[in-house]
Amino acid sequence: MQQFVEPSSRPSPQGQSSLRSDTRTLAAELPSRAGENVRLQGWVHRRRRLASVTFVVIRDRSGLAQVVVRDPQTVAQVEEIGEETVVEVTGKAVANPQAPGGVEVCDPALTLLSEPAETPPVELWRPTVNAALPTLLDHAAVTLRHPTLRAPFEIAAAAVSGFREALRGLSFTEIQTPKIVGAATESGANVFALDYFGRRAYLAQSPQFYKQTLVGVFERVFEVGPVFRAEPHDTVRHLAEYVSLDAELGFVADHREVMAATHAAVAGMVAAVAEHAQPAVERLGVSLPGVPEEIPVLHFADALKLVGAPDDEQDLAPAHERAVGEWALREHGSDFVFVVGYPTGKRAFYTHPQTYPTDDAYWSNSFDLIFRGMELVSGGQRLHRYDDYVAVLRERGLPVESYASYIEPFRYGIPPHGGFAFGLERFVARLVGADNIRQVTLFPRDLHRLVP
Amino acid sequence: MQQFVEPSSRPSPQGQSSLRSDTRTLAAELPSRAGENVRLQGWVHRRRRLASVTFVVIRDRSGLAQVVVRDPQTVAQVEEIGEETVVEVTGKAVANPQAPGGVEVCDPALTLLSEPAETPPVELWRPTVNAALPTLLDHAAVTLRHPTLRAPFEIAAAAVSGFREALRGLSFTEIQTPKIVGAATESGANVFALDYFGRRAYLAQSPQFYKQTLVGVFERVFEVGPVFRAEPHDTVRHLAEYVSLDAELGFVADHREVMAATHAAVAGMVAAVAEHAQPAVERLGVSLPGVPEEIPVLHFADALKLVGAPDDEQDLAPAHERAVGEWALREHGSDFVFVVGYPTGKRAFYTHPQTYPTDDAYWSNSFDLIFRGMELVSGGQRLHRYDDYVAVLRERGLPVESYASYIEPFRYGIPPHGGFAFGLERFVARLVGADNIRQVTLFPRDLHRLVP
Repeated sequence: MQQFVEPSSRPSPQGQSSLRSDTRTLAAELPSRAGENVRLQGWVHRRRRLASVTFVVIRDRSGLAQVVVRDPQTVAQVEEIGEETVVEVTGKAVANPQAPGGVEVCDPALTLLSEPAETPPVELWRPTVNAALPTLLDHAAVTLRHPTLRAPFEIAAAAVSGFREALRGLSFTEIQTPKIVGAATESGANVFALDYFGRRAYLAQSPQFYKQTLVGVFERVFEVGPVFRAEPHDTVRHLAEYVSLDAELGFVADHREVMAATHAAVAGMVAAVAEHAQPAVERLGVSLPGVPEEIPVLHFADALKLVGAPDDEQDLAPAHERAVGEWALREHGSDFVFVVGYPTGKRAFYTHPQTYPTDDAYWSNSFDLIFRGMELVSGGQRLHRYDDYVAVLRERGLPVESYASYIEPFRYGIPPHGGFAFGLERFVARLVGADNIRQVTLFPRDLHRLVP
Repeated sequence: MQQFVEPSSRPSPQGQSSLRSDTRTLAAELPSRAGENVRLQGWVHRRRRLASVTFVVIRDRSGLAQVVVRDPQTVAQVEEIGEETVVEVTGKAVANPQAPGGVEVCDPALTLLSEPAETPPVELWRPTVNAALPTLLDHAAVTLRHPTLRAPFEIAAAAVSGFREALRGLSFTEIQTPKIVGAATESGANVFALDYFGRRAYLAQSPQFYKQTLVGVFERVFEVGPVFRAEPHDTVRHLAEYVSLDAELGFVADHREVMAATHAAVAGMVAAVAEHAQPAVERLGVSLPGVPEEIPVLHFADALKLVGAPDDEQDLAPAHERAVGEWALREHGSDFVFVVGYPTGKRAFYTHPQTYPTDDAYWSNSFDLIFRGMELVSGGQRLHRYDDYVAVLRERGLPVESYASYIEPFRYGIPPHGGFAFGLERFVARLVGADNIRQVTLFPRDLHRLVP
């Protein structure tokens, strides 16, 4: 047996301290602290020297605070340190109607918390950043400090928590499935290959097969995680890696219950953004969509008629999606519209043929959710019988043996089920009106970009 | 301009239906439905034919329900379908003290919701599954249906939501950072390489560098996502891919505030498991740890004395971690204990030398959290000055140019900061007392296993 010796130092003096949020004042708290002594911590966002006074704007995670410097020694100190230097400022919070937020910090003492900062690659103090996207992306961890550039990620964080919360509220279980997979199943093309202990493996293009078979375990599952597409297109919409929001649920009658779950997830995301990311929404000046109680629904065949396309078209062109979006807004006041029943032949092989409103295998029990005129979510009911999988794989000329481990669970009872998926970045891009998906991706990966 | 044609079918008849949870009765709801007509949906978990009656146990995501079949035609139907077949059962809920839960379903009508199931690779109806781990893993999407095997993943889902909730409550922002990276930085070894549009890229071993530099943007960040280690060790503890729980926070005095955040995260996880996964906890018969208000803390030097190890040891051996865990339990009644001040030379290069309780660069401002005698979390304060990074990289013979994009943001003001990381699977394994980490991983990836 191990002999225990009592340690000389007792645990308590080493004890974990609190997070000290009680003694630090955030910029956003300043308006309620007039008359008090405060301690700010943050970055020197901007300095402005006037004849008789120097203003220092301090930036922290909550916003900006104005510090008024009159004392010549402190003015000299401010002269020496550059923007982005990390400082602590103690002083007195004083009401001043002309200060941003109505309160500023006077008689400050400045302490550097790190070494003085070099001049950043982009002038972060400007209200609007004046730099090209490649420059912003090359120095993302610095340029994202700008309150406007940072805002989409505060919105993304709120949105993703709303997605999870909505689905957890509907008894969905969160899952984490492997990103290294043995077969390039969903579509042979556009897959990244890697060396896996001397064997060939691939990066998962989606958790599609895992989430479907896990319906057999948990009935309702969701996953938030990266997916990988070796996307050879260099466009404003494509990324080689993005965050996929995936859900799947069993015991459905058809795709309409999947649409109900989609509706709940999207409504939860918009509500969470409104509740938790309002400052970011205001900074960007965007208006959040209302999510109607009932999202308008259009059958694919009707959508083709609506937009004046030939009735044998297999998909909606971008212009047609825009037109459908305009119709939904005009006729139903909705930023969202479901298009259902896409031709089975053009959807993924696991798509269930149409059973509602009529049995017709030319159409399918699938849907897209169009948000502000662009496809956001894709989903539908899936096949759930083993024999149907074998038949459709043969019919499409896909190698059944590659799908063996995916379709095996269908031998042992998988209920009728369906699901949906969409990219978090695409949702945020549409929400904030970003021109380029890279503006809402922290460190985008594309044909050319692998760093930072 | 596009000419709009009003579609022939109006949206309402196609409208998304509700999730119909109002008309389906879950197994767990049955005890409160005595006397009512019910509609169960689930899997045929078990059939038992007695002389005058046949029992069918239906399994759904909430539990098991007993169905009593007397009608000869239905008995014959039950004979024909195998376990795991997906069915709907309508009938009357009848109180019976001898039934599990006190209520069973009588006069049932059975409808198949999919084709009859084949005999599963493992007998799922047995209270204890009688199969070796490789068999269970080879057929994971089927074998995880067993209530006991499924339980750890219900616990994992609750734990991860508790992690996020605790950190969101402390103003942490959730981030998603790329898993495909341009340089194998954290440690050259054990990294998976891939072909990235003709260039060499790697799978991220951790979000370490991203979360650190994003402290400059959000101050406090966390990430839940996969990390990849080309782990050549074939042990019960190692995986090639696991879910890493990562957090990082700025404006800390030293590692003690990082420990406070760790404490909050772990306490949130245990509380969420107790709140949201109680049925799984009961099914496994595990007892949840209490997380004390103040977790005991032991300096590394004192830990060496305690376990009787030489005072120049650089790390704690597994037996020593166990001994420290026993000390914490015996002396403080705690399943958790922090060991702080690990020798700087053995920690990652970004580790901050010790400033508390004394300035002494032999030790570091780092810590491990030991849970039930095994390291769970690793964390500490990091270096925050650019020049310190250049110096430590040179000192350790690491190529500064490989780290250029990682350390660049440190030129522009990064506050004193620290963070922590741990594997979700390791946490769950310890919590449920799993012998092998693969038992708490849906589809494990290791030296040999790439499928399913």
